Amino acid sequence: MQLKNDLILRAARGEKTERIPVWLMRQAGRVLPEYRAVREKAGSFIKLATTPELAAEVTLQPVNILGVDAAIIFSDILVIPEAMGLPYEMEEKRGPIFPKIIQNQKDVDNLLIANGETDLNYVTKAIKIVKNELNDSVPLIGFAGAPFTIMAYMVEGSGSKTFSKAKKMLYTEPLLAHSLLEKITQSTINYLNAQINAGADLIQIFDSWAGILSPEQYNEFSLPYISKICEAITTVPKTVFAKGAFFARKDMAKLNCETIGLDWNMGIEESRRIIGENKTLQGNLDPCALYGTYDQIKKETISMLKQFGNHRHIANLGHGLYPDTQPDKIKCFIETVKEYSHIG
Amino acid sequence: MQLKNDLILRAARGEKTERIPVWLMRQAGRVLPEYRAVREKAGSFIKLATTPELAAEVTLQPVNILGVDAAIIFSDILVIPEAMGLPYEMEEKRGPIFPKIIQNQKDVDNLLIANGETDLNYVTKAIKIVKNELNDSVPLIGFAGAPFTIMAYMVEGSGSKTFSKAKKMLYTEPLLAHSLLEKITQSTINYLNAQINAGADLIQIFDSWAGILSPEQYNEFSLPYISKICEAITTVPKTVFAKGAFFARKDMAKLNCETIGLDWNMGIEESRRIIGENKTLQGNLDPCALYGTYDQIKKETISMLKQFGNHRHIANLGHGLYPDTQPDKIKCFIETVKEYSHIG
Repeated sequence: MQLKNDLILRAARGEKTERIPVWLMRQAGRVLPEYRAVREKAGSFIKLATTPELAAEVTLQPVNILGVDAAIIFSDILVIPEAMGLPYEMEEKRGPIFPKIIQNQKDVDNLLIANGETDLNYVTKAIKIVKNELNDSVPLIGFAGAPFTIMAYMVEGSGSKTFSKAKKMLYTEPLLAHSLLEKITQSTINYLNAQINAGADLIQIFDSWAGILSPEQYNEFSLPYISKICEAITTVPKTVFAKGAFFARKDMAKLNCETIGLDWNMGIEESRRIIGENKTLQGNLDPCALYGTYDQIKKETISMLKQFGNHRHIANLGHGLYPDTQPDKIKCFIETVKEYSHIG
Repeated sequence: MQLKNDLILRAARGEKTERIPVWLMRQAGRVLPEYRAVREKAGSFIKLATTPELAAEVTLQPVNILGVDAAIIFSDILVIPEAMGLPYEMEEKRGPIFPKIIQNQKDVDNLLIANGETDLNYVTKAIKIVKNELNDSVPLIGFAGAPFTIMAYMVEGSGSKTFSKAKKMLYTEPLLAHSLLEKITQSTINYLNAQINAGADLIQIFDSWAGILSPEQYNEFSLPYISKICEAITTVPKTVFAKGAFFARKDMAKLNCETIGLDWNMGIEESRRIIGENKTLQGNLDPCALYGTYDQIKKETISMLKQFGNHRHIANLGHGLYPDTQPDKIKCFIETVKEYSHIG
C-alpha cells in the first residue's frame, strides 16, 4: 500500500522531497465549521472522541477542506489516564477535570497498564475507518502525550498555569513520580503500538507542559521516558514536540526519533545549529500570525520557509491552531508552503 | 542617608559583597498569614494596593518576618493602565478584568500619559511611609511592568494563556501597537521616576508575558521600550526580568541596566555565558523547590549558589512565590543563602 502523497514520511526520514510537506496541529478541530457541526451532533467532546465514526469524520475534514499533507487522528492525550483507570470530564471553559487524582503509591499501584488494543479500541477503530477512507492518499499521524505531561494532569487534577501540585511531587516524592511515569510510559508504548497496528503511518509525542520544568528536572523526569517510547517504537517515524523545552534541544537531538517540533519561541537557525543535521525539524509559525492579512501570512510563511532552508523541514505552526482562526487564512498558510517550497 | 544593609545595591553595581543578597518576588503577599490579615481588613486587593498605610504595612512584613535584604513596594503592575484611564477589577479566581479595552487608535488617543506624582500618589505615599519605617535598614525596590506586558492586558482585557487578542494586534496593526506602547512607556518612566523621588533605591521592570512572543516580535515590540525606560532612569540601579525570554538574553545584555533576572528554565551557567560578565544576575530557584523538605531546599539552594559562583548574583526565585508556600520553607531558602554564600 504505497501512499500517493508520502512527502511527510520522506521528509521525516531526511530524503529530498519535491516540496516541503505541511500540516497543522489542531487542524481537526474548532477552527472548522464542519467540525463544530459534528461536535454539536456528538453532544460532548468526549463523546466525539470516543465514537469512532465521528472521530474519523472530523479527522478527515482538514484533508479534504484544507489540503494538508497528513491527517492526524482526532483524539485527546488524556485518553491514557482514562484507560489507566483515571477518568476525566471536559468542562467547556475550564478544560479537563479529574474527579480522582494520584496522591500516593497506593493510587499508582491501583492504576492499570493500558492495553492499547482493548482499552483504547475506540481510537484504533477510528484509525481503521480513517485509513480506509483516506485510501492511501496521505499518511495518518497517531499521537500520545509525553509521560510527564500526562502525569502533570493526573496529579494536578486539571489544567493549571503552574502545575504546582504536580511539580511538588517531583521535589517531595521523586520515587513516586518515577513509578507513575513508568506506568504511563508502558501504557503509552502499548497505545502507540496499537495505533500503528491499526494503520498510523507515523506518530507524534506531545510534551505540552515541558516548559514548566527546569533543565535538570526535564532531564530527570521527562526526557528519559520520551526516550523509552522512542526506543520501543521501531516501525514508523517519530516526532517529538516539547513545547517550551528550548533548554533540552541539544539532548533531544540524541533521541531515537526522526523529527523534532519547534515552538515559535525557538529561533529556527539557532535550533538547527543546536540540534544538528540528523533530524527533521517541524514547525514553527506563531499561531497568531494567521490573524494577519493574506499578504502578511504569505510574508511570514515565506520567511519561515527560508529560515528552515527547504530541507528536512515539515511545515507546521509552533503550537496548535487557535480556535478563532479563519479557515481561509489557514489555507493561505498551506498554499504558501506548497507554492514557495519547491526545490530546484 | 547610608543604608545599614546595602548588599543588593552593591551587588547590582558589580561590587564585591560579603555574601550574596537575597529577596523573593511576591515576598509581600499571600504566603504570609500577616499579609492575609491585612488583606482581609482592606476588603479587596485593589483597596489594599491603593491605601498607602496598608500597602506600606504589607511591604514591611517580609523584612521583619523573613529577614530579606530588601523590601519591594506592595503594588500591582496594572496601576499604570488605571492611571492612563483604563481601570480594572480584580476577581478572586479570574484575576484582573478590564471593563474597557484598547481596540483602535481613538482608544489610544483617549489614554492619558500618567503623571507619577499625582495619578499614582497612593504608591508614592506608601513608599514614603515604608522608607520612614525602614529607617535605612534595607533598600526599597520600586517596580513597573514592561510596556509589552501592560499592553497585553490593555488589549486582551484580562489574563490569558495565549494573549491571542493582544498578539493579533501586533500582526494586524503594528503601528497602533507601537503608539500604545509609546504611551505606556512614557507613563512608566514618569511612574518610576516618581517612585525614585519618593525614595525607591532601585527599580525592577517585570516583563511577565515576554515568553509569548517570538524572538523577532520581542525585538520589535518589547525590548526597545524596556531600553527606553532603562535609558531614562539614571539615578538608581535597574533590574529587568523578562520571564520566558530565553531567546533575548544576548540582546538584554546590551540594555542600560545593572541586573538581569533569570527564570528557572534558564540554565545559570549558559545564561552567564550568553549575557557576559557585565551584568548582575538575579534568580532563579524554581518556586516549587520550596515545597521540598528543609534538607531538599538547602541542597537545591546551595546548588543554585554554586552555579552562580558567588559573584554578581542576587539570590531570588525564578518567578514569584506560589501562595501555598510555607513561610518556614521560605526562611530556609533565605538562611541558606545567608549562610552558604560567604565569600572567602
